[in-house]
Amino acid sequence: MPEFLSLVTPEEGLELLFAQLEINISWEVVSTDRALRRITAVDIYSPQDLPDFRRSTVDGYAVLARDTHGASEGLPAYLEMVGEILMGRESGFSISSSQCGLIHTGGMLPKGANAVVMLEDTQPLKSGEIEVYKPVSPGDNLIEIGEDIKEGEIVIPRGTRLRPAEIGGLMALGITETKVVKPPIIGVISSGDEVIPPAKKPSLGQVRDINSYTLSGVIQDVGARTNHYGIIPDSRDELRAVMARALEECDHLIVTAGSSASARDHTAEIMDELGDPGVFVHGLHIKPGKPTILGLSENKLMIGLPGNPVSALVITQVMIKPILEKLMGLDKPRPRPVLEAELTVNFASQAGREDWIPVRLTEGSPGSWKAEPVFGRSNLIFVLARADGFVRIPPAVTGLEAGAFVSVQLVG
Amino acid sequence: MPEFLSLVTPEEGLELLFAQLEINISWEVVSTDRALRRITAVDIYSPQDLPDFRRSTVDGYAVLARDTHGASEGLPAYLEMVGEILMGRESGFSISSSQCGLIHTGGMLPKGANAVVMLEDTQPLKSGEIEVYKPVSPGDNLIEIGEDIKEGEIVIPRGTRLRPAEIGGLMALGITETKVVKPPIIGVISSGDEVIPPAKKPSLGQVRDINSYTLSGVIQDVGARTNHYGIIPDSRDELRAVMARALEECDHLIVTAGSSASARDHTAEIMDELGDPGVFVHGLHIKPGKPTILGLSENKLMIGLPGNPVSALVITQVMIKPILEKLMGLDKPRPRPVLEAELTVNFASQAGREDWIPVRLTEGSPGSWKAEPVFGRSNLIFVLARADGFVRIPPAVTGLEAGAFVSVQLVG
Repeated sequence: MPEFLSLVTPEEGLELLFAQLEINISWEVVSTDRALRRITAVDIYSPQDLPDFRRSTVDGYAVLARDTHGASEGLPAYLEMVGEILMGRESGFSISSSQCGLIHTGGMLPKGANAVVMLEDTQPLKSGEIEVYKPVSPGDNLIEIGEDIKEGEIVIPRGTRLRPAEIGGLMALGITETKVVKPPIIGVISSGDEVIPPAKKPSLGQVRDINSYTLSGVIQDVGARTNHYGIIPDSRDELRAVMARALEECDHLIVTAGSSASARDHTAEIMDELGDPGVFVHGLHIKPGKPTILGLSENKLMIGLPGNPVSALVITQVMIKPILEKLMGLDKPRPRPVLEAELTVNFASQAGREDWIPVRLTEGSPGSWKAEPVFGRSNLIFVLARADGFVRIPPAVTGLEAGAFVSVQLVG
Repeated sequence: MPEFLSLVTPEEGLELLFAQLEINISWEVVSTDRALRRITAVDIYSPQDLPDFRRSTVDGYAVLARDTHGASEGLPAYLEMVGEILMGRESGFSISSSQCGLIHTGGMLPKGANAVVMLEDTQPLKSGEIEVYKPVSPGDNLIEIGEDIKEGEIVIPRGTRLRPAEIGGLMALGITETKVVKPPIIGVISSGDEVIPPAKKPSLGQVRDINSYTLSGVIQDVGARTNHYGIIPDSRDELRAVMARALEECDHLIVTAGSSASARDHTAEIMDELGDPGVFVHGLHIKPGKPTILGLSENKLMIGLPGNPVSALVITQVMIKPILEKLMGLDKPRPRPVLEAELTVNFASQAGREDWIPVRLTEGSPGSWKAEPVFGRSNLIFVLARADGFVRIPPAVTGLEAGAFVSVQLVG
């Protein structure tokens, strides 16, 4: 077989890729309330201190801490109540020695006060005074100006995927528009004489297109956009024309090859013709997904995936997804969600090859998981639909034994 | 203090809730290519066998297995090549004894053949015959009819959140429309005299609305929809009017209370007036989030959250999110993504109380994680923006020691 003579490991493939590919981020400004899951394109600085006034964290009385020194149930401190601080307002008064003001959670401390006594540690008297049964220190039960964030601090670094908490933080600062990474457009081409659109009824020998849709799903999860170029027959000329057009119209290109060897060869040859440096990875030492091709046309990534839907989806999830996130400037991906689980069967793996085994998780005792491989005799699409995640067997490991504890990467 | 006399644990709260609340799913039909992350409303059955013809899994020759019996490099089997099977077609010929047909990966086996010999185990001769160097058994290198899925099988059970793999499986079966759960509409009300919209510049004592946006984010993640009712001042009458309207227009209702005790009391009182059985949980034994109120108006859930943005978001993520998923019929949630990590400091917790500690994860040696609590002196919104996840301390545990291994629930 002429193809895939020099396999590289996925890790080597990624190194080759990022040694040659320049990461150029495009950005756009969006309303912050529509920025959930987007990636920040710039460092975001705080325009103000947060909070910008001293706030009480309890319901109680704003006081001078030294006035409560030594207070106890037996020997309360007596303070004169000079007013109530309304929510959302500056108080109209200030606190002098032996005075206090009624304050609510979130209320602004009046001038002079430097601590808050909790309501439950006090008792109001008919005289308009209150009894305080517990001493407080300066700063107790309040948030200082700038305690959350100080003016000029970086609140969210560039390359952060915005979660609800970050959206909330931006809103707290009045940052209602945010500079985020513009989604790159990924051209997706399915190919194969045997492949037809899902809405059509296949004749004997035909199969419905799966790859366009599974790939789209992962690309959508990443936050990139898809341009679909339909299903191209195994004709070198037609495929070349569509690949050339897609490359012009998109930022990057993914082709799922027809499943025969000659169809795969076409894809690689055309990639080589479409730009420099062309194909630089021709086969990965990975299972499933060996017939994966990586190429570059100037600074556009070209990916050739195996036609087998399971191989195509696994490679997209474990390899293409992190590549796209890096191309979108995601700086420090959050820790990957994994579960420790006990493998239920032995699993052999070839030395030098990275294996990804789809597994289904079942809970044993609460919090303890068993991982059961769901590979059938062949890689079929419903195998993946039955899987909760993957176990990775690194190239240096030749197998895993039943009972071994493995890290399962969950797939969403 | 009159409020929160009888706290219940979150678990008890959920039990009370689901003992009274009837789960009624509404459904709608959507195009399958737009159904990613939606939840199936019915069991989905396969309309056909998949595959519905015998497919080769390799490039090679379709043969009768018995013709290759005993074949070796030294003593090859000789077979007559009678044709090539084109992709996507039935072959125009059948295979009789001592014959073979050239076939590609994914090609349909011709009649008579019951196995495929791999190309690399053969050699074509000028005579039109091929030499076979390795025997195959019946069924080798092919996928049988129905091997992936059989007609009438349940392919995706009701209550499944659709991932790219499931979308692909549906497409493979020509199921281009799918019955999915209609998103419930959650009314969201922020309240508090001190709260202003994020686009406005606060006067001293005012703060910008955070909760409307963080809650929306989590609701959006779940796949429900939000109706916003803006920011309501701490006026009992105004709040009551808006809550009544929201309850009429929405499926469920979330109110973040003003932060003072009296504002929280209003919320609970109004909930009690708005329908039966009214409030049934008035305070949770959880930190943060103690002032959480759960109520029911007929079959609509009413949730009162603390005004503190961190408390509101934590309760929404760890408690409201799973409640909403259950209300949407999600049957068996996938295992929650967690990471095992070593706690960096001691952490005390009150007996009987469930604690959720936001932590930041840092990687030690590859694959080993340290969890560092990010709580400051107070619960501020950027604390959560710095957190990768939460450590849960169950009610029965009174604390955790530095060096202990804990499960960190990641937050997206």
